[in-house]
This record gives sequence, C-alpha cells and structure tokens, in this order.
Amino acid sequence: MLKRRDLNFVLYELLGADALADRPRFTGQGREIYDAVLDTADGIAREFYAPNRKANDQQEPELREGKVVLQPGVKPAWDATAEAGIIASTHDEARGGMQLPHVIASAAIGHLEAANIGTASYPMLTAGASNLIAAFGSEEQKQRWLPPMLTGRFSGTMALTEPDAGSSLADLRTKAIPNGDGTYHIEGTKIWISGGEHELTDNIVHLVLARIDGAPAGTKGISLFIVPRRRLGAAGNPAEDNHVTLGGLIHKMGWRGTTSTLLNFGERGACIGELVGKPHQGLAYMFHMMNEARIGVGRAAMAMAYAAYHVGLDYAQQRRQGRLPGEKDPAKPPVPIIEHADIKRLLLTSKTAAEGSLHLILLCARLVDEQETGDEAAKARATRLLEVLTPIAKTWPSIYGQEGISAALQVMGGYGYAREYDVEQLYRDNRLNQIHEGTNGIQALDLLGRKVVQDDGACFKTLLDELRVLGTGATSAALAPLAAQLQAATQRMVAATQALLPVMGKEPARGLANASLYLELVSRVVYAALWLRQAVVAEVALAAGAAGDDRAFYEGKLQAAKFYFGFELPKHEVDAALLTRNEASAFEMRTEWF
Amino acid sequence: MLKRRDLNFVLYELLGADALADRPRFTGQGREIYDAVLDTADGIAREFYAPNRKANDQQEPELREGKVVLQPGVKPAWDATAEAGIIASTHDEARGGMQLPHVIASAAIGHLEAANIGTASYPMLTAGASNLIAAFGSEEQKQRWLPPMLTGRFSGTMALTEPDAGSSLADLRTKAIPNGDGTYHIEGTKIWISGGEHELTDNIVHLVLARIDGAPAGTKGISLFIVPRRRLGAAGNPAEDNHVTLGGLIHKMGWRGTTSTLLNFGERGACIGELVGKPHQGLAYMFHMMNEARIGVGRAAMAMAYAAYHVGLDYAQQRRQGRLPGEKDPAKPPVPIIEHADIKRLLLTSKTAAEGSLHLILLCARLVDEQETGDEAAKARATRLLEVLTPIAKTWPSIYGQEGISAALQVMGGYGYAREYDVEQLYRDNRLNQIHEGTNGIQALDLLGRKVVQDDGACFKTLLDELRVLGTGATSAALAPLAAQLQAATQRMVAATQALLPVMGKEPARGLANASLYLELVSRVVYAALWLRQAVVAEVALAAGAAGDDRAFYEGKLQAAKFYFGFELPKHEVDAALLTRNEASAFEMRTEWF
Repeated sequence: MLKRRDLNFVLYELLGADALADRPRFTGQGREIYDAVLDTADGIAREFYAPNRKANDQQEPELREGKVVLQPGVKPAWDATAEAGIIASTHDEARGGMQLPHVIASAAIGHLEAANIGTASYPMLTAGASNLIAAFGSEEQKQRWLPPMLTGRFSGTMALTEPDAGSSLADLRTKAIPNGDGTYHIEGTKIWISGGEHELTDNIVHLVLARIDGAPAGTKGISLFIVPRRRLGAAGNPAEDNHVTLGGLIHKMGWRGTTSTLLNFGERGACIGELVGKPHQGLAYMFHMMNEARIGVGRAAMAMAYAAYHVGLDYAQQRRQGRLPGEKDPAKPPVPIIEHADIKRLLLTSKTAAEGSLHLILLCARLVDEQETGDEAAKARATRLLEVLTPIAKTWPSIYGQEGISAALQVMGGYGYAREYDVEQLYRDNRLNQIHEGTNGIQALDLLGRKVVQDDGACFKTLLDELRVLGTGATSAALAPLAAQLQAATQRMVAATQALLPVMGKEPARGLANASLYLELVSRVVYAALWLRQAVVAEVALAAGAAGDDRAFYEGKLQAAKFYFGFELPKHEVDAALLTRNEASAFEMRTEWF
Repeated sequence: MLKRRDLNFVLYELLGADALADRPRFTGQGREIYDAVLDTADGIAREFYAPNRKANDQQEPELREGKVVLQPGVKPAWDATAEAGIIASTHDEARGGMQLPHVIASAAIGHLEAANIGTASYPMLTAGASNLIAAFGSEEQKQRWLPPMLTGRFSGTMALTEPDAGSSLADLRTKAIPNGDGTYHIEGTKIWISGGEHELTDNIVHLVLARIDGAPAGTKGISLFIVPRRRLGAAGNPAEDNHVTLGGLIHKMGWRGTTSTLLNFGERGACIGELVGKPHQGLAYMFHMMNEARIGVGRAAMAMAYAAYHVGLDYAQQRRQGRLPGEKDPAKPPVPIIEHADIKRLLLTSKTAAEGSLHLILLCARLVDEQETGDEAAKARATRLLEVLTPIAKTWPSIYGQEGISAALQVMGGYGYAREYDVEQLYRDNRLNQIHEGTNGIQALDLLGRKVVQDDGACFKTLLDELRVLGTGATSAALAPLAAQLQAATQRMVAATQALLPVMGKEPARGLANASLYLELVSRVVYAALWLRQAVVAEVALAAGAAGDDRAFYEGKLQAAKFYFGFELPKHEVDAALLTRNEASAFEMRTEWF
C-alpha cells in the first residue's frame, strides 16, 4: 500500500537500511529478505486489509448477547498477519520472532496501516504489549505470555487511562492489593482501552497501570501488571474468567474498526494481576513502551496521510474540470484538474506531509535499531536524538498529515467529502492521532519542559548536529539557498529556545505556556532538514543520469523540497518570533473572561 | 443557541442594527421587535433543533419503498420554523413576509444553524430559492410559487452542479427544449442536490440551470428554470408527477441530516420547466442568489464554530485534570483544565474564530440591508464592499472556524473525539463549508482574479477604506500597537496586490497560482480589523464603567483581540512575503513529477 519506490528511496537511498545486515543481530539478512518481508506485508495489506477499510468503518464493533462482535474481515486479517510473523517481527528468533530491524518492520507495518487502520491496530497493540513483557517481564512471564501473543493466539492492550486520569496519569486510582502469593487483586476502571474486548483471540492480555496499596501518591507510586481476560490454566491455556468486564463501548468519529472500551477490573469478582518488574516502576516501564507507541502513532498518521495523498493524486489525474486561467474558449476540452495551480499546491501539501513523515518515522525506527545494535557512541547519540524526535514523530505526522489529508479531500471536492470515497474516512481516522498516547499539548510539554533541557541540553545539541548532517551536500545552485534557509531557521529556533529557558526557570507556567508553538517550530525545522536531505539525494541521482520514471521521481522530490521551503518552512518564523518575545496574550487570559 | 450577550454586542454595539428601524422599509420596527424575533428563533432552536442534532446525524435520510424518509425531528422543526415566519423573514409584508432587516434575520437563522445544521438547511435552501424567484421571477411566478414556499407548504432547492460540471459550471449540459408554449422540457442529471427529494413538503421547487437548445457554449448560454417535483394543478396545488427522479442518495461525512441527491430530470417522462427571467441570463441570476448563499455558508460555518467553542468552553470549565507547571505536590487537587495555558490558547483560537466570524457575517448582512435600503452613496459603497467581502465570508469562517472546532475538540481530548459528544459532529459538518457553493479555490480566484481588479480596483479601495474605519478610535496605550500592526499588515497586503497585478496581466495562470494564499492574507487582515473594532468598543464600555459580567465580557473581548494580533495576524506575513515574491514552486511543479 506504500509505494515500493518511496520505500526504496527512504529505506535504502536515505537510511541505508540494508547495511544493518552486517550487524550480528541481523546476520544472514539483507535487502532480498527485507524486500520479501515488505512484499508479504504489502500483499496482506492488499488482500486482507484494504478491501475491508470501508466495511470496518461502517460495521463498528457491536455488543451482541454479551459478546463484542467485530466486522468479519478483521479475523482473517489478524490470522494472516500473525501467520506471516508480523506481530513478532522484531522479536528474537529464539522466541519465534523474525529478529528484523525496526526500520524494516516499521515499513512493513506501514503497509497495513495505510490500508486499514481499524484492523491494523489489533496486531500493533499486541506487538506493543508483547514488547513490554519482553523488555521488563520475568523469564517465566516471557515464557508464559509471549508465545501465544506473538503467534496471535492472544492479543494485548495497554490500559493506562481512567475516567479521571487521562493526560494526568499521576492521578490514576486503580488499586492493586497484594494477595500474599505474589499476585494482586486489581480493582478499578479504565477508559478508551482499544482492543479491550472482543472474540478475536483466545485471550486478551491487558497491561495495566495500578497503584499498590500504600504506594506513594503521584507518578512514583504506579506499578505495571499483566491482567489477562481469562486466567491461564496449568498448561498455559485460558481457563476461568478473570473479571475484566466491559462497562461500555465508546463510539468514535473515526478509527471505528477498533473496539474502544470502558473496562471494569474486579467489579464482579476477583481480578488477578501479576506484577511486571519492580513495584512503583510502572510508569518508567510504560514510558519505554510509550516511546515506541508514540512513534507508532506517528507511523499510523503517516500511513493515513500517505494513503490520502495517493487517492487525491489519482483523482486529480483522472478528473477533468475547467480550463487554465487565460483560456477563454469554452469549446476547448476541460483539463485534468492536476494542471490547475491550486490543485498542485494542495497535492504538494499532501505529498510533503506524507513523504516527509515517512522519512521521519523510518529515521526514528532506524535510530531504535541504532540504540539496540549500534556501538556505544552510536547508541548514545541515537538515544539522545530519539528523546527530542519522539514528541515530534508523535505529533507532526498527525498535524501536518491532517493538513495533507484535508488538502487531498479538497482536491476531490464533494467526492472527497462523500463516504463513497476513502478520504473522508482518513480525515476522521487521523484526527485521533493528535489525541491518543499523549495529546499534542502533552508532547509539547515533554519536548520543551523535559527533552530540550535534560542533560544540560545534550539532546537538543544532538538535534542541532543532526540538522547539519541532514543538510550535508546541499551546495548546488538549486539547493544552496535552501541550505541557507535551513540554517537561518535553525538559528531562529536556537534563539527562541534561549529566550525561553530563563523564563521557564523563573516562572515555569509562563515559560511553557506556548510549548505547542515550540513543538510546531521545531517540527517545521526538522521537516525542512528531512526534505533537504531528500533533495540532496535526488540531485545526486539526477546528476548520475537517472532516466524515465526514476528521473520524474527525483525531479518530483526536488520540486517538493522547493515547495516545502517556499510554502511550509516560512511558517516557523511566526512561531519563532512569538516564542522569542514570549507572547503572553493566551497565558494572561483569565478564566472568568471567557 | 447563539448567546444573547454576543448578539447584542454585534447587532447593537457594533452594527447599530436598531437604527435601521428609522428607514421606511422597517417602519414600526425597533429593538423590541428584533429581540422578540431573536427570542423566537432561539426558542425554536432549543425546542426543535438542538435536541435532534445527534439523531439527525445518526438517522440519515433513507430510501424506503420509493420514498426518502427523514429523521422524525425534521418535520416538527420545519413546521415551527415556517409557522414563525422565518423562511419569509426578509420578504415583503405584502407577500406575507416579515420585512425584517437581513442583519436581524441572519442572526435569527444563526440560532437554528448553531443548533442543528442538517435540519436548518431545509428552510435555508427554501429561503434562497424563494429569494431568487422574488428577485427575477415574473409577477405571475411570484404569485404562484412564493406563497406556498414562504409558508412552508413547498420547499426549494438549487440545482446547479452536474457530474461533469462542478467548479466549472460553464460545462453544464442539462438541456431545456422549448415546447412552444413558453415552457421547456428539461433533460439532464444534477448531483449534490441538497434537499432534492423527501416527503417533508407537498412539493419541491427546484431552481435548475440548463442550456436552451442552440444556446452558446460556456457561461453565456445558461438559463434558469423553475422545475417542480410535481406540476401545479389549476388551483396551484401539486398535481401530476413532473419526472424529477432520484438517481441516488449520497452519503457524506457530515451534514448527514440533509438529503444529498443525484437527480435525473426527464429521464422517465416529460419534465416541464418554466424559464425565470430572460434566456441565457441564468448564471447572472444565480450569482445574485449565490452571493447570498455564500454568505449563508459562512454563517453556517460561523454557527458551527460558535457551537463548538461553547461546548469546549463548558467542558474546560468543568473538567479537572493535572496541575500547573511548577506545582510538584501530587496531593494537591487537579485544576479545571481551563487554567492550563495551552487550553486557554486553544479556546482563544476557537473564540476568535467564532466571534470574529459572527461579526463578519452580520456585517455582511448589514451591508445587504444597506444595499437595499441605504441612500445611493451607501448603496454603492455596500455593493463594492460586499463584492470583496463575499468570498471571504464564504471561506474564512469555514477555514478558521474548522481550526476553532478542531481546537475545541482538542480541549476535550478523547471526549471531543467521541460521538457521545457534539464536537466531532461539528468538525465533520463544517468541513463541507469549504467545498459547497464554490470551493475555497474558486472563491480565491473570484477574489483575486475578479473582485480585486474590477472597476479599476474600486472594490479593493473600498475595502482599504473600511479597514481604516474599523480601526478608528484605537488610540489608547493598549490598542495603538494593534492599530499599528493592522496598518502594517494592510500595507503588506497592498504591496502583495501590487506585485501580483502585473504578473496576472502578463501571465494569468502564474499570477493567479497562489490566489488561495491571497484569500488567506486578506481574510487575516479583515479579521484583524474586526477584532480591533471589537476591542475599541469594549474599551469604551470599560471606560464607561461596565461592571460585573459585563466587565468580564469586555475584558474577554480586549484580551481576545490581543490574542488575535499576537497569534493569528502574524501568519499573514508568510502569505504576504510568498505572494510578493510570486513564489512559483507549486506552479512550476509538473504533473508527471507527482
């Protein structure tokens, strides 16, 4: 569903993913295997996901005779995905995984997400939950839970949010009462739990944040538990009910194929959970997973923006309407609308959002690989970079991507707005990505209030270094002006940061008041660097004599980069000026004046 | 549904609507009557519209046994609206109308649209169609069609678009074949016809654009016809079927309560139409109505943005979550989220979009009143101003309003995204406003390619004059900086315009390529002037000793104006720079490079 040409460009021409095969963890792998994995995922996306995109939207999970019934296309898609090993793709071969690089696994999953997000979220949530157990569970827990999860017998969820504790997890109240035998009674209510109830799998493994009796208040008293829907019998098979009961299904604007639930733990009987790792470390563990999940949200947003772009592009190439300005003869045939300048502008908005996000997301996945398999220096650098890039990867594909989807919708006019076509669904689906796994506002506070200042600004300095690296080679007559623009933008970003830091020190609420604009600023600069990198590589390929479709592909990349620098990057100046002068008109609004 | 305090501010404190009662057409009227009209509309909105907003979204018009069945709440709402005289509110008393000023009628209708747009569109479409007949129909046509339309026995539609002629009406192909008796056979297919088929009324009066046999190609050969669903018998009652047949219902992302149809004219039998006015003048007539309809689209967008703002605001005042930055004690109770700076920023985005649009829309309605009842100079000025303001009123409430709705949704997090709440529906509903009655792109071409240049720039000059008038009195220490900002922004807008004109003359396609950004630029400057005006009036009221709720209201206006100038207006600089340098990176993108 993602075009192979685009994936080849990012994976191999930009990120050198095939070179990972030289590392011990990936021995025996190589581009041939990676391409086969991508083919498989693409094939599954086309056969099992895309055909049900609409049906999955229209037939929401429904409660029938006490059971949550999913649209019939979900089960075959789940089975095909599990069977192809996609849930386990990055896990150790020793545990039945494919031991693939994250960058390849991420591209593969992108196929599924571009085709049908409502269905793709079941394997994605299960992969996230299984990764958490793999990272922090005991050996016994890994042996008991991972095999059925990785093979698709069990599915997984993340149960963090409560009705009164959403953005503020510090306030969560779900209780864990020690049973004395190492297990706990879990009591509480969780909301917005995706995949929280269904009959897709033999069991559902909830990873639940709760507070052990007597634990400190706030984030320091939160522990992580495995809480299955059904307890495991002696042979590790699901046995009696564990009293995780459905309080209700939530109906969302989009992303309708994925069950969204209110879950009550231990309301109608004992609900047993097992502690993962140490007490009170739950939030730290969850954040490990959450960083992955946040990049995952960005990937989903990218995939939707990508899908919408191609629907809009196809339409614009087919649809004939109107004539170019200056053509007064009504007898002349109408032109394909892609020839209208405003349609080009809309499509370029869509293209730069989608393809810029593809680059960012796979870069982040590549950095995760570096964290896991690089040498010490590379590991440290990748970690620092991921610290600052994660809030951007979480938010910008969903914000800029929504603009891109909206542009694709606009290209199609009424057809884009009609449910008979796909784009309106992508517009509804993607809007969630600005909310779940930490809203834009939470990500912005994370970026400015934490990531930029931590370790004496080491992460931020690494970002500045990466921006320079991405711009390397932009010295031609065509690209030098873009490189200069990037440099000026980076300087403005640095100046804004320096203006904010003292205010944050003196009066944190005031200093952080415009954090969302700071996130916007940094994101726009980062995308500029990514687009400049794409342009540099395209220019080299053109100089090397790329021909035919390849030539058009690289020319498109060059022109899209120019568009980004012409239309999108300049918006950062507004953010930078506002932050540098510490604009306080929102901060100083009083609640009673609304 | 629109707060009376806001309406009073705009109608009486900003626009002096009550002074209209001095004019002959409005003799005997006055604020008491206007307030009573607003009360009535507000009451109908609360009793018949708001309670069905969700139901109207969930139970789409459905084809059952050959009939289009609407959600049951539509009929009582329609009846109450017709009975209260709202369809006929601006029509002559002699024809059974209320002969109200447009500015009052528009505010009244805003109540209905804020409450339930899917239902409000039936009376709105009927009002539009009846206005067209009143303006261009023969006396006989007026006598035959207006009474049943104005009293709600018949409803109306606008049938312009065809499957292959949307943005380009010049290409429409529906045929009108003269019958020799003054009537015509109508043959063709129309699409996206709102209210095109239902059992709400005894008859549906379609106002159809078609091409008389032998008419010239293009826009110059289009005529306007009245084509009823059922022909009228001798007594003017609906009699035999006129063969306007439903080709299908279209299912949209939002605005679901309003039937959207594909209609076939004359496919299954003779479909008789009567010409309105002169042959080949149809597009000019329709544009008269369309200007009204375009401001109407802006009003609907305003109403949705307004409704969303208040849902988000209520939520933010109730919902407690998290603590302010710097507060480290987790035992402290969470604060209402309205105290978080980012929530204030989102709510101010929503407020400035909603209340700025309310001002703009009622200003336009007030100008229509000036056109119809002012002296010659006032008439001419109002006409010029409306020429340039109409594309802005059509688009900016829907674009900026969508940002405002999205901000309100974001304030509510997952709840905003859930169909259990109202905001997601408003987000879906309002997206259409950027498309119907001429897309953003079409409006942008209208503004830059036509309105700005026509009459040697007379309309544009009048706009510049109006911007000055709106800024009058902004001389205090608080407002003088805003006035200076507005002046600088206006100068940038003028400079961009001057840079574009020669390019448009030499190479129209290149000069108009970024018309959408020009529309954005002018819109941001116009809203700045509107907000400055609101601030000036608020400041005067505060100086005059406003107290209590009134004081908070005016302080809120002042602070919102500062917010607009701090966060929103600066975005115009990006547009102005881009237009002034005639940024060509979108224009120069080749279709094969996509």
